[in-house]
Amino acid sequence: MVKNMRMVDVIEKKRDGKELTTEEIQFFINGYTDGSIPDYQASALAMAIYFQDMTDRERADLTMAIVNSGETIDLSAIEGIKVDKHSTGGVGDTTTLVLAPLVAALDIPVAKMSGRGLGHTGGTIDKLEAVEGFHVEITKDQFIDLVNRDKVAVIGQTGNLTPADKKIYALRDVTGTVNSIPLIASSIMSKKIAAGADAIVLDVKTGAGAFMKTQEDAENLAHAMVRIGNNVNRQTMAVISDMSQPLGLAIGNSLEVKEAIDTLKGEGPEDLTELVLILGSQMVVLAKKAKDLEEARKMLIEVMENGKALEKFKEFLNNQGGDGSVVDNPEKLPQAKYLIEVPAKESGVVSNMVADEIGIAAMLLGAGRATKEDEIDLAVGLMLRKKVGDAVEKGESLVTIYANREDVENVKEKIYENITISEHATEPKLVHSVIVD
Amino acid sequence: MVKNMRMVDVIEKKRDGKELTTEEIQFFINGYTDGSIPDYQASALAMAIYFQDMTDRERADLTMAIVNSGETIDLSAIEGIKVDKHSTGGVGDTTTLVLAPLVAALDIPVAKMSGRGLGHTGGTIDKLEAVEGFHVEITKDQFIDLVNRDKVAVIGQTGNLTPADKKIYALRDVTGTVNSIPLIASSIMSKKIAAGADAIVLDVKTGAGAFMKTQEDAENLAHAMVRIGNNVNRQTMAVISDMSQPLGLAIGNSLEVKEAIDTLKGEGPEDLTELVLILGSQMVVLAKKAKDLEEARKMLIEVMENGKALEKFKEFLNNQGGDGSVVDNPEKLPQAKYLIEVPAKESGVVSNMVADEIGIAAMLLGAGRATKEDEIDLAVGLMLRKKVGDAVEKGESLVTIYANREDVENVKEKIYENITISEHATEPKLVHSVIVD
Repeated sequence: MVKNMRMVDVIEKKRDGKELTTEEIQFFINGYTDGSIPDYQASALAMAIYFQDMTDRERADLTMAIVNSGETIDLSAIEGIKVDKHSTGGVGDTTTLVLAPLVAALDIPVAKMSGRGLGHTGGTIDKLEAVEGFHVEITKDQFIDLVNRDKVAVIGQTGNLTPADKKIYALRDVTGTVNSIPLIASSIMSKKIAAGADAIVLDVKTGAGAFMKTQEDAENLAHAMVRIGNNVNRQTMAVISDMSQPLGLAIGNSLEVKEAIDTLKGEGPEDLTELVLILGSQMVVLAKKAKDLEEARKMLIEVMENGKALEKFKEFLNNQGGDGSVVDNPEKLPQAKYLIEVPAKESGVVSNMVADEIGIAAMLLGAGRATKEDEIDLAVGLMLRKKVGDAVEKGESLVTIYANREDVENVKEKIYENITISEHATEPKLVHSVIVD
Repeated sequence: MVKNMRMVDVIEKKRDGKELTTEEIQFFINGYTDGSIPDYQASALAMAIYFQDMTDRERADLTMAIVNSGETIDLSAIEGIKVDKHSTGGVGDTTTLVLAPLVAALDIPVAKMSGRGLGHTGGTIDKLEAVEGFHVEITKDQFIDLVNRDKVAVIGQTGNLTPADKKIYALRDVTGTVNSIPLIASSIMSKKIAAGADAIVLDVKTGAGAFMKTQEDAENLAHAMVRIGNNVNRQTMAVISDMSQPLGLAIGNSLEVKEAIDTLKGEGPEDLTELVLILGSQMVVLAKKAKDLEEARKMLIEVMENGKALEKFKEFLNNQGGDGSVVDNPEKLPQAKYLIEVPAKESGVVSNMVADEIGIAAMLLGAGRATKEDEIDLAVGLMLRKKVGDAVEKGESLVTIYANREDVENVKEKIYENITISEHATEPKLVHSVIVD
């Protein structure tokens, strides 16, 4: 079928603003994956796509071609609709830790494949490893059995999933083609689909701490991903949520596990709790366990209040070797040696907290990885004592630093530089919009 | 200076439509030449340039960076202003063979470096090798001595000139970035400048047989090249000339040498003679041997009429081992075995001769090379008996095929397919415009 295709013709077609056929897109992805199409042609095509974009049909085809470039996870042995949640990433984002047991408490299967990754704090697996004994080294059969029995399990990244995405991603990073909606959207969606999701809830962050700095960019990306999902028969919706300031109060691995426990009890920070309920309601509806969002929200609040959500978290930790008693005794989590306050230098209202810079402050303490080789200190991090819109008196603490070293001057400085105190403040809207197409 | 530069930043800057600095352009060219910048980044930049173009300053910097990527030919030992002529290439283009001795006959130094190349017929060197004994294997010292003494010599491509251009050209060919004015213009101009030209006359072809199919594209390219030349202190001008039909009547190596001899005697085809006079006049003025084009033209006609131009051609051939007596006895040139006429199938006026397709007909006979390994048959080719605008009677010959095989049905067919006979015809304008900035 693609015997006489030439990559240069595919590049020129896209360069000239024409729509590539399904076969041309498969030819590119398969050839690039098997090495018969070289990097220099792939990067030229990526740049042409950057300028000329792709239609909805091309984006769906690109996504499925990437999915089919490698192995896929077959979750059909798990009963029910497998709804996955994906966040485009932010600072202090504890939603996955809360959502997994919360939704599972409503008998919705949560079969989560997760990674470690680079960032201000560790990934979901790193955070969970703050619980002594917890591990993700389980077989695929154990994983499926656990989800069927107790509705929630997490497994580490396994198999050769979306190899085309790995190659394209590495290439984009060094060729100025990262910032292309069709390339970002197909990259994210292909990974979710390869990991076996039947339906997908996307949390697209916007603001200083997010990859998409503006609401418009975030909405464009969300629309692109939702359309891809729906075009390839994975019901998908997206929430555009604020990441101008960090989400919740905790930034750090142990600290976020503690915050997740609080939230599962209904005692978490307001913004985190609200976002969890919004995303969770969408998951419950997509899983067809509630007729509408309102009913779903009530169900979620109920399991928070009656203790079932927290019980599910304990069970989940125990199932994977962890010490589930941590949910009753959070002091069992790794504790930092030094708690250092950062007092306000003046009175007023907090008007800005630059999310990504606050995240870097946590990273300076050792909470995250800059390179794959870095070791994470699970105990350290930041607890925000104030958020945007809060009044503050001079000398009152803005942030508590959890550190394993005494000298944290550089962290303090970073925090002061990125928290503004003014006379007035406008509180950022937590959820900008919900996108279903 | 460029220690902390990163290629990805250069790509992104151009992608975003910004102007690259001289240092950034040198960083790219030097890094790509020495291999520290990989193909995939070069192709991404080429595609970004395709979309975002380059300013005049960037184009001049790119050209000089390519010139400085390798060796350059130092012609300073040759007295006088070295004016080079460059044609963007066409079918049956005998101008170089005529211009070199013609201009040299006016004591203007013509130090020509030439190649073989691919195409419908051979390059200038192939054509000259139709003269028995002629060769270009002379040393650089011999070359310079010959030009100083007799004003004209041709040497084969020597030294490692513009290695960056060779790499970029090969990459553009397979990445959909051939058709970019700044990349084409810098490629051509860098080669002329590296070969030692003080001033440059460009013959930019337009029409079916040319790389630039439309007059607008040809003028854009011409402006780009002229500006580059003038910005790097090489006085440059361009003539936009017709290549909708072949130039002159001969297409083939021996046939074109014979046509050059006729033209040097003032007995050549009208269009070829006129174009030679137009380009030659520009060369004479750039060499400061005449005060204006009118005077230059008179001088050129004079050496055609008094035999000095032809004498110079003979001297030039003799100087490089050739049998100069060929100018008096053109039958000494390689002769084809079979002369086959292509009679008109109807009466009327020739209204179209598709230049590139007629060129391919000559190639089918063996007059040119499709790949580097092909051998050229110097004797074969086509002589046009009619050109656009000429009346023709049914049965009258349109073309004479000079072949070394009897069966030339495919060549005949190609010719018939690409010559149109109608009731009326519009003769194409030979020179569309002259561009000096």
